[in-house]
Amino acid sequence: MPRVVDPVERRRELAEAVWRVIRRDGLEQASVRNVAREAGLSMGSLRHYFDSQGKLLAFALNMVIERIERRISALGPQPDPRRRAELVLAELLPMDAERQAENEVWLAFTARAQVDPELRPLRDHGYDVLAAGCRQIVQDLLGAGAADPEVETQAERLHALVDGLAVHAATRPDRNSPERLAALIARHLDDLTAR
Amino acid sequence: MPRVVDPVERRRELAEAVWRVIRRDGLEQASVRNVAREAGLSMGSLRHYFDSQGKLLAFALNMVIERIERRISALGPQPDPRRRAELVLAELLPMDAERQAENEVWLAFTARAQVDPELRPLRDHGYDVLAAGCRQIVQDLLGAGAADPEVETQAERLHALVDGLAVHAATRPDRNSPERLAALIARHLDDLTAR
Repeated sequence: MPRVVDPVERRRELAEAVWRVIRRDGLEQASVRNVAREAGLSMGSLRHYFDSQGKLLAFALNMVIERIERRISALGPQPDPRRRAELVLAELLPMDAERQAENEVWLAFTARAQVDPELRPLRDHGYDVLAAGCRQIVQDLLGAGAADPEVETQAERLHALVDGLAVHAATRPDRNSPERLAALIARHLDDLTAR
Repeated sequence: MPRVVDPVERRRELAEAVWRVIRRDGLEQASVRNVAREAGLSMGSLRHYFDSQGKLLAFALNMVIERIERRISALGPQPDPRRRAELVLAELLPMDAERQAENEVWLAFTARAQVDPELRPLRDHGYDVLAAGCRQIVQDLLGAGAADPEVETQAERLHALVDGLAVHAATRPDRNSPERLAALIARHLDDLTAR
């Protein structure tokens, strides 16, 4: 009797195989053929779940965003906006092996979307989610309205800082440990709220 | 009589052909064959200047760093450290078409070096040059010694902000105009020196 496969679980496993190929060999190596081999499936079986490389990549990229959003939802209510800011931002940065994998996959997609228009909507969606998250954090910390231009300025600064730290942690982990990232974020939030 | 070709000029032209291929098709397309075609040369002629793809890519990447360093040297003495900081940082960010090209090439290399160990030393050199530049700016602005831990903290923040803005400008130029980048940098420097 064939093993009953949960299709949701199988798609998740395939996306993780995409991540492994991207991190080891680069995103352009994440073909249907290579991912099927990585996952130990035939190409026919893989095509049962994803009928093109574009759909496979889009699913694997979207999983980065979904995982981050799920962890942030799971944080639950946090009455202290400063504490909430630190917890949310820590979910976006490579503080452990899982987030390190997400971060490396995201960097590969960011670069690849420059020359692959099919990937751009999802990359831009990720940008928008992070921009909105930074705006909310700044609004809560400053007790300001969304229309306040200071909120927009500080949100863009925070967003750039987070993305810069993420790139640095991916490329120079020796100089950008989780503790160092947390300390730099904490310092930035200190200065933001001390004003 | 064959045209006399300045070899320095020819290597520069070839590096620019590499840049065009990277920006249009992605870094993994910058093979000796594709770059020769882009430059209108035979593969044999290209191999006269670069005998491997690795050397061609390394030269093209290094040209990003050299151009930035040359422009910063050309700024000449700037007695006001704040003015100097703004001018130096503007050379690192995509404020015009030339710097936009450099920035996109750099993003492609950053991602590619994650899976190509041959490219890493040059990418890390670029990181170190920028880190040192940020440290010098912060030292001059704060009038502090290099050993002051506050210099290191603020230099890392500035470095992350600059790299985050560079990624945002490459990926979302509509939301990150040169004027907006300059305003965010100016605001960051204001806050840094107001302390």
